[in-house]
Amino acid sequence: MKKIQLTLIQIDNYGPWTVTPRPKREADIQILQAKLFADLEHQFAVRGGLVFSTRFDNMLAISNGISLDEHRAIQESIHVRYPVTVSMSIGAAEAPYEAQKLAAQALQRAGSSRSAERRGILAGRGLGARDEDWVQIVHMDVDRISTMTDEKPIYDTHELLQHVCLALMKAMSRYKALVFYTGGDNFMAPSNGLSEEKLRLIMDEVERALGIKLKAGVGCGKTAGESAHLASEGLHEIRKCQAKGPIVFKTS
Amino acid sequence: MKKIQLTLIQIDNYGPWTVTPRPKREADIQILQAKLFADLEHQFAVRGGLVFSTRFDNMLAISNGISLDEHRAIQESIHVRYPVTVSMSIGAAEAPYEAQKLAAQALQRAGSSRSAERRGILAGRGLGARDEDWVQIVHMDVDRISTMTDEKPIYDTHELLQHVCLALMKAMSRYKALVFYTGGDNFMAPSNGLSEEKLRLIMDEVERALGIKLKAGVGCGKTAGESAHLASEGLHEIRKCQAKGPIVFKTS
Amino acid sequence: MKKIQLTLIQIDNYGPWTVTPRPKREADIQILQAKLFADLEHQFAVRGGLVFSTRFDNMLAISNGISLDEHRAIQESIHVRYPVTVSMSIGAAEAPYEAQKLAAQALQRAGSSRSAERRGILAGRGLGARDEDWVQIVHMDVDRISTMTDEKPIYDTHELLQHVCLALMKAMSRYKALVFYTGGDNFMAPSNGLSEEKLRLIMDEVERALGIKLKAGVGCGKTAGESAHLASEGLHEIRKCQAKGPIVFKTS
Amino acid sequence: MKKIQLTLIQIDNYGPWTVTPRPKREADIQILQAKLFADLEHQFAVRGGLVFSTRFDNMLAISNGISLDEHRAIQESIHVRYPVTVSMSIGAAEAPYEAQKLAAQALQRAGSSRSAERRGILAGRGLGARDEDWVQIVHMDVDRISTMTDEKPIYDTHELLQHVCLALMKAMSRYKALVFYTGGDNFMAPSNGLSEEKLRLIMDEVERALGIKLKAGVGCGKTAGESAHLASEGLHEIRKCQAKGPIVFKTS
Repeated sequence: MKKIQLTLIQIDNYGPWTVTPRPKREADIQILQAKLFADLEHQFAVRGGLVFSTRFDNMLAISNGISLDEHRAIQESIHVRYPVTVSMSIGAAEAPYEAQKLAAQALQRAGSSRSAERRGILAGRGLGARDEDWVQIVHMDVDRISTMTDEKPIYDTHELLQHVCLALMKAMSRYKALVFYTGGDNFMAPSNGLSEEKLRLIMDEVERALGIKLKAGVGCGKTAGESAHLASEGLHEIRKCQAKGPIVFKTS
Repeated sequence: MKKIQLTLIQIDNYGPWTVTPRPKREADIQILQAKLFADLEHQFAVRGGLVFSTRFDNMLAISNGISLDEHRAIQESIHVRYPVTVSMSIGAAEAPYEAQKLAAQALQRAGSSRSAERRGILAGRGLGARDEDWVQIVHMDVDRISTMTDEKPIYDTHELLQHVCLALMKAMSRYKALVFYTGGDNFMAPSNGLSEEKLRLIMDEVERALGIKLKAGVGCGKTAGESAHLASEGLHEIRKCQAKGPIVFKTS
Repeated sequence: MKKIQLTLIQIDNYGPWTVTPRPKREADIQILQAKLFADLEHQFAVRGGLVFSTRFDNMLAISNGISLDEHRAIQESIHVRYPVTVSMSIGAAEAPYEAQKLAAQALQRAGSSRSAERRGILAGRGLGARDEDWVQIVHMDVDRISTMTDEKPIYDTHELLQHVCLALMKAMSRYKALVFYTGGDNFMAPSNGLSEEKLRLIMDEVERALGIKLKAGVGCGKTAGESAHLASEGLHEIRKCQAKGPIVFKTS
Repeated sequence: MKKIQLTLIQIDNYGPWTVTPRPKREADIQILQAKLFADLEHQFAVRGGLVFSTRFDNMLAISNGISLDEHRAIQESIHVRYPVTVSMSIGAAEAPYEAQKLAAQALQRAGSSRSAERRGILAGRGLGARDEDWVQIVHMDVDRISTMTDEKPIYDTHELLQHVCLALMKAMSRYKALVFYTGGDNFMAPSNGLSEEKLRLIMDEVERALGIKLKAGVGCGKTAGESAHLASEGLHEIRKCQAKGPIVFKTS
């Protein structure tokens, strides 16, 4: 059975830390969060994974192909370089939504996000066998966004992209797929099992609601790195040749 | 006349760069974006400013007190360390929405975001006199979010926070205030001129619509660093003593 | 035949870059160099390697177990994030000195360090078979350096450590071993084939010349990561129990 | 009276930390050290200072123009982002050697580098009045080093540069000037009071001993940033026009 493996990465006891002994400067918090995300992205990517910044204090990673030992090595390396520790929890399921739910439940059973005792734990269960690894990622962007960037107040474009993100999240959730904003006009959706037909319905719905056009590359492979790359290539083919239509599927 | 000064920071010709000569790996793009943001945050913060990650390829900074020369120094320093250049554009106005609009217009007049010719320019106009500097920032968070984090699937909490963000953006925009998500359950709103009464109306509206409770520290001062810090302290006082009510104002 | 594999990493055309169009600020150059080194260290380490900062514009890495494709992946990832490119060249030999010489020769044949045409090349030849991988690393430090740090002008201690480094380099070179300063009072020596007896002679010689005492953990394994870790553990055992004598050998 | 102000930056209790609870991976330590240095360089530079990596666990910064409050702000910002704390100590004197000695003594009086109790302290005394600020920096490099890099084993060039560094340290110390290696074939010497004549004697001595040629730009100004930049420009002028001779002095 093909499954996606997701890892929930949670900074331990982070809320209290940001205000102890008194509120830390916002800029320092922003820098810490961005650097920690970049570092984790680096470490998961080199092993074939992909991290989404999500809430920054809670990140979700596609981690197919990454073992428990490798998760532990990443944690240790983070703990050498940062003033905070991170707990991780793994979930695997056919649908991405189920996988993150399993990961979250395993972490919740291990202790609260605000517990001073829970530090750097590794919980949950990954895939039992490597031949179950399967990752489908949709990489979408908004048509002609640069026209908007070049003509409208920047905050308007920013707000529109938030609308697009939320509309995609809502529509995708019906199929137990997840959507993450990856900057610019880009969205990435771990979406195992979502057919081209369903994807087209989702895109139509969002386009009608918001008056924009989307295009989508879809990549399927055994790791997030592979699938994301195929998805980006698919999207790039559409950009170069609109005749391809708004969706290109690529499987490794 | 008291004004907020905003700087729009735009990576030059970024879309084409990400796919030349072929699509770059998503993880590398994520790392670049996060590190560039952290670096800019660092450089603006040390001069009293504050950068919001916004779209990552387009960032907005509150830059009261930061001169044109200092903007140029930041640009030069970025160009030594990154494979991309950034253009910047400054706008100042009584209302934050107007300030970003002026900044965007000045940059748009200087060339397209997708122009290969426009590189590292500095456009727009800051405040004429330092005694006009004024920054009001609201720092809000969601009550009891950790309960949710500890009990619900993490993606559900993530989605809820996106809803909160968008609802705040919509409500705030009526008063020409801006809202940025700063990670976790935190939102920061540059909101010169927004009264406590109006802020309470906005918070009530969002709370009713989404079934959550917000609390807000408001800081006012001559720089973003100062105002953000006062806002965070105000919020912290509410956390420690709910009897204070959901809003605390602090002026330097 | 057991061999060490070394990779020479050279920033392309770096000298001219630092002064074009005019001399860049020294601080920016220092930051770039340190970040580039940290990034490369990260990427080699995750694959079992270890990079020494060496000259910063030219770094040497122990790269046993790292394939040509992995070298290319590291290069691509660097090129996405930095304004400079790096060329790499691989050499493998029984003696570390020979390995770096082969690597340097291969790179020199491919073009000058000051050529504007040579960009991001990968030259040289690694090990043919993985069962040839062998890395011996000595991790040395200076006895009671903290007493000195706590009692002398800091520059005096710094100067003494430079003397130790150079004396070790000179003595080690007779056995075709290399020595790198790794900060604090620490030195690491890739030293395949160096016996405990010879190492003791070297340490005696340096101690007599400079009036200090050294201790040394020696690690042997198939990758730099493994060997360095064994060496550090050996050194740590001596620190905890001086009765062990000044040298501890550990083989995986 | 014109004086240079130096800051000694020492990681607190660092030795024990690197081996608790067991020896940390060498690569992680290297990454931490490089990032911490880059971060400190960034923060001092933006305020006109310049940090030398020195021993990495002990760094020396030229800090003319940087107040006690600014030192404290840098410390706080470091403590938010790293798992270690740093103590700092300031010394000011006419001669650079004396300034670092005063800084070291003040830190030593405040506690040992291996004390678990001494955390993040700020000791010593800076300049009393801003009109005393004076920084002379010599920026030197080795003539035709790229020929060597392109023809010799890289380790040979590396070793030669260590010899040059140590020879410069020895010769400069007679005039109470300091020398730091800054990567490539570059050396920077804080050298208040050193005349062109004396500098020429030093360079002659090192050249004769090692069979190489040096050239030197000398910059004098009120901050390290200014002086370092003038020195780099001076050196660049010699590179472009050898007829200028081996030394160019520039004063702001």
